[in-house]
Amino acid sequence: MPLHIVLHEPLIPANTGNIARTCAATGAHLHLIHPLGFSTDDRYLKRAGLDYWHAVSVHHYDDFAHFKQVHGNGPGRFYLVETTGEKLYTDVQFQDGDFIILGKETTGFPPELVEEYRENGIRIPMGGATRSINLSNCAAIVVFEAFRQLGFPNLD
Amino acid sequence: MPLHIVLHEPLIPANTGNIARTCAATGAHLHLIHPLGFSTDDRYLKRAGLDYWHAVSVHHYDDFAHFKQVHGNGPGRFYLVETTGEKLYTDVQFQDGDFIILGKETTGFPPELVEEYRENGIRIPMGGATRSINLSNCAAIVVFEAFRQLGFPNLD
Repeated sequence: MPLHIVLHEPLIPANTGNIARTCAATGAHLHLIHPLGFSTDDRYLKRAGLDYWHAVSVHHYDDFAHFKQVHGNGPGRFYLVETTGEKLYTDVQFQDGDFIILGKETTGFPPELVEEYRENGIRIPMGGATRSINLSNCAAIVVFEAFRQLGFPNLD
Repeated sequence: MPLHIVLHEPLIPANTGNIARTCAATGAHLHLIHPLGFSTDDRYLKRAGLDYWHAVSVHHYDDFAHFKQVHGNGPGRFYLVETTGEKLYTDVQFQDGDFIILGKETTGFPPELVEEYRENGIRIPMGGATRSINLSNCAAIVVFEAFRQLGFPNLD
């Protein structure tokens, strides 16, 4: 089973494009929960994704309820990357098929989603002047930690 | 001692901006080896860096020789992130003060640099349709692996 990166209502096309590029380079699947802040024809999206969209397994959902309806019964577990996550992302033992879910660039997840998945909230440790890292960088950090734990399956 | 992220002749301002943001969020220092493909007044650079430039320790060098003159005698070791690196980035045992060095977005490092640091070349494992990930994502993946190994000093 692949790992999954899920973007909940992403706003900035270059971020989604860079994450698509990470997916193309690793075999992770990309899931986009609408509404999106851009058209999937956006040129920044395509430029950032370097025209590797055809090589990425992309799945679209009308909203989180739709996503949950399709994937909520497992086997992959949902992990929400958020600044108030109780666990560090490195303290999770990732499994094949897990879903790494990231919120909107500006406002993160709606409070009710954070509450519903409180036990599966994971955070990237930060400190200093700001506690915020670019969305595509957050996705890369967490998915590569998962790949590291799994022994980089099919990657070399 | 902090960790260091070094960009060798970066071209795309948004990448350097996103890496500056990672530095602001973690305390890593940023080193820019000229020539740069943009002005440090660039608006994309500032937007990506979200105006946290004032919080980042940024150092400039005329060229690699200048950088090496200042830092080449240690104590921090140089690690060049490149697709032909012999070791995986996860096989290095990072130490406080190490320098994680990334090449130009389009062409990577000059061959003579790759040769000079052959034993310190590290790669991010990839597979599938492409073997290339956005530069700021590469920086984030490697520096957070270093932080993980070091126990996330001063981060929480």
